[in-house]
Amino acid sequence: MRRGARSRAREARKAVQTAGAALFQSPGRSLDNPHPPLAPLTDEQLELIHNASMTVLEDLGIEVASRQVRERFRASGAIVDDVSDVVRVERQLVTALVSQAPECFSLTPRNRANRIKVGGNRVNFGLVSGPPNVHDRVNGRRTGNFEDYQKLIKLGQVFNVISFFGNQAIAPVDLPVGSRHLDTYRANLLLSDKVFSAVPIGQGRVQDAVEMTARARGIAVAELREEPSLFGNININSPRKLDDAMSDAALALAEHGQAVIVTPFTLLGAMAPVTLAAGLVQQNAEALFGIAMIQLFYPGAPVVYGGFTSNVDMRSGAPAFGTPENAQANLAGGQLARRYRLPYRTSGCNASNLADAQAVYETQMSLWCGVLGYGNLVYHAAGWLEGGLVASFEKLIIDVEMLQNLVAVMSPIEVGPEELGLDAIGEVAPGGHFFGTAHTMGRYASAFYTPLLSDWQNNESWLDAGGKDTAQRATEIWQSALESFEAPTLDPARLESINEYVAKRRSEIGHGEP
Amino acid sequence: MRRGARSRAREARKAVQTAGAALFQSPGRSLDNPHPPLAPLTDEQLELIHNASMTVLEDLGIEVASRQVRERFRASGAIVDDVSDVVRVERQLVTALVSQAPECFSLTPRNRANRIKVGGNRVNFGLVSGPPNVHDRVNGRRTGNFEDYQKLIKLGQVFNVISFFGNQAIAPVDLPVGSRHLDTYRANLLLSDKVFSAVPIGQGRVQDAVEMTARARGIAVAELREEPSLFGNININSPRKLDDAMSDAALALAEHGQAVIVTPFTLLGAMAPVTLAAGLVQQNAEALFGIAMIQLFYPGAPVVYGGFTSNVDMRSGAPAFGTPENAQANLAGGQLARRYRLPYRTSGCNASNLADAQAVYETQMSLWCGVLGYGNLVYHAAGWLEGGLVASFEKLIIDVEMLQNLVAVMSPIEVGPEELGLDAIGEVAPGGHFFGTAHTMGRYASAFYTPLLSDWQNNESWLDAGGKDTAQRATEIWQSALESFEAPTLDPARLESINEYVAKRRSEIGHGEP
Repeated sequence: MRRGARSRAREARKAVQTAGAALFQSPGRSLDNPHPPLAPLTDEQLELIHNASMTVLEDLGIEVASRQVRERFRASGAIVDDVSDVVRVERQLVTALVSQAPECFSLTPRNRANRIKVGGNRVNFGLVSGPPNVHDRVNGRRTGNFEDYQKLIKLGQVFNVISFFGNQAIAPVDLPVGSRHLDTYRANLLLSDKVFSAVPIGQGRVQDAVEMTARARGIAVAELREEPSLFGNININSPRKLDDAMSDAALALAEHGQAVIVTPFTLLGAMAPVTLAAGLVQQNAEALFGIAMIQLFYPGAPVVYGGFTSNVDMRSGAPAFGTPENAQANLAGGQLARRYRLPYRTSGCNASNLADAQAVYETQMSLWCGVLGYGNLVYHAAGWLEGGLVASFEKLIIDVEMLQNLVAVMSPIEVGPEELGLDAIGEVAPGGHFFGTAHTMGRYASAFYTPLLSDWQNNESWLDAGGKDTAQRATEIWQSALESFEAPTLDPARLESINEYVAKRRSEIGHGEP
Repeated sequence: MRRGARSRAREARKAVQTAGAALFQSPGRSLDNPHPPLAPLTDEQLELIHNASMTVLEDLGIEVASRQVRERFRASGAIVDDVSDVVRVERQLVTALVSQAPECFSLTPRNRANRIKVGGNRVNFGLVSGPPNVHDRVNGRRTGNFEDYQKLIKLGQVFNVISFFGNQAIAPVDLPVGSRHLDTYRANLLLSDKVFSAVPIGQGRVQDAVEMTARARGIAVAELREEPSLFGNININSPRKLDDAMSDAALALAEHGQAVIVTPFTLLGAMAPVTLAAGLVQQNAEALFGIAMIQLFYPGAPVVYGGFTSNVDMRSGAPAFGTPENAQANLAGGQLARRYRLPYRTSGCNASNLADAQAVYETQMSLWCGVLGYGNLVYHAAGWLEGGLVASFEKLIIDVEMLQNLVAVMSPIEVGPEELGLDAIGEVAPGGHFFGTAHTMGRYASAFYTPLLSDWQNNESWLDAGGKDTAQRATEIWQSALESFEAPTLDPARLESINEYVAKRRSEIGHGEP
């Protein structure tokens, strides 16, 4: 075994106690999946899906709200219908544009140690993002608000296995809609030093993220282009519609060299056809169109192929997540992204109303397929509940434990002479035990994964300790993590610069749009 | 896509409503894992473990309680120490013996439709077996008893995804220890028509299983040899000790051509060294020794390589299951089994005290690694709780849902012209929806996996319906399944023959040993 792999194996097993809190957590921030990707589609099937999606772009096209985007496509040889605003693009142009995108890139937050690589077999896990509501066992279910937003950012900062924040952990609806992004960016930059997302709705919010991040890093906006910090996820309004708030945000990010994820929201049976294959055709057409658009304006800009294909509950029409079809799409989406040499974004999902057994089995199924499918950015990997309508504090803790376990399962197995343990085996007589051997004593503290949340006591001891279920224990853990939270240091001059910018922009925006 | 694969894909998605109960369950009984096995050990590491385990057998040996076994090994060239009863075997002999075992075999229960294949990429899921206690939310935690035993067999019979029963779903401790196997066999044969395990403790209990199964199938004992029905799992008393109750049972099974699983119980840090590599060395030495023993007496007898390597909680010394090390061992054990062209037995495990989030994430992690590691027999795949000290009714239902989901995730994706859905995509305008299209309407009933247990309602509807958590809903499902249970038909003459045998043997055994 190579030295690097061995030390990574040790690292992955060594629990660290987070300063001030009795939290056992893994030190590793991200995961290199050592296994070949799991691929449910045959090469032939992959080509059928590719070809069908090219036919969609050539014959059916995408409705584009932005005149600027339509004109740019027209100038490149695409066919634009001026009545329907539909843009139809030949496959040669699509693939030529897509091939300009980098296969891999990095995002550097204000703490360089928390830089993340996006591409290859690197798997990064992100905090839940987007829910309009929030829940914990102490305070119940409530509308998203800025106080809870900050708590969620703190939790995402504390746990090493979380390496990025998607767009707003919850919507802070108690803040004015036009300026709340300034407050969430400021919270992200003060309470955390990890990678986070710009709010990818229009140009102004992106520009603010760029300005504030440059100040937090103490660099010029132009320097940020050379070493990007930010990303943003735009959705295609499936089927086949690209809104201008999305294209404006995407182009603003790309203009500054920041990364854009393009994720069609292809819910089988609703915004996409009912079959998984057709859903993937549509997803592929829409994602590649968005990526081609970005490359048309900014060749070589960092982009990510996003997949978010799940299905509706055919009994009610309600969206379902963490289904088998969703898990298969997570795997197949990775195959499609790799076909175009693009980094891949997927998600951990569930549709449960509680942080209970269903939430866990649905989440773990989608997570496994996200990891096995080489999801470079796994969105919603901690804290997502109710199909994305709620960010749950207890679910966040449960997910962190699951993610840490997954990282440990994927860590290399050490098989050196010491680990093979022939001497130790020879030391213990048949029917004896290994508790007291030197081989055991020298390793017991770091031999195994130490759980954050799991309780391995026998029934009697567990009852004596209060007989707490997993969700109850999770409550104690997030409470403890918040109590002992210390914000990462930020240079006072940079903080002042951020505060000045926020004050200026808040007054500019007023009650309007940024 | 081949025709067979396509029809399997349809099958896997089509929910069937179990007669009399409103249970949606998948029709498929077993799973062919279409992916290459996940392999955490490099080829070089695999050989290091193989070689070290051969050194264990050559230099350290196994303590063998049975004189008959020791003498047979001595006669074949092994070195037997008559003071310690330790048998040491050269690697050439071990590998020559192991190579006589079949790579794949089938087990045929009284209903031939429930025959299972053991080998290759076929994954069969088994009901929990062995716990001394039982739990459900209505009746609480109690000692194993025959009434609950029968209920568990009924549930294992009802759910298609369960295809075999390990040794006693729970210990029916209200029945006399010497004859209770007659009652459990009779219950297995009357309430179920699936494959089940003999009680592999000594020769007598195995003989009774053979006799009763032959009567249930309406064939002679000699015919059972040609087409085996039964299996038994023997444990090595780790480290390096083979008890005679185990070897007697194994040889009795093999004598009748029935299958033997050899599973060392290698708990890292307790009955095995603290490192995973050394635990695998010991597991491999012990499993191959047991298999070699069987082949020494009955060349070509069906055997299975068993792995049950987990770790202790180093803080308490208590065993832990469903840990990352356990999951890695599930994968690596499969690599070792395949190295010797042997079928593989592994397990789904957890150490939780409740059928809650922990129970699920630990179980699903070990299950994924059991499935991805080509576990041909996945023990304890439904109903195991508390590290095997409890069989849980609610956990059983949760597990069945997880298993059905897993089977659906592993089912082939259909990518024919109809599934690619270009016409359907063209039918819907940008920004529209697919609810009413012919493509959707023609498929909506069978397009997606229909859950047994998952509740996908939105929060309001879910609250209106009582706001039940997953465990509460699982209670309703097992109650409904038991209420509507109908035993599979059994020819009255065969039943009478079984009853006669049981009566005769019960009086022979009395209060003694069988």
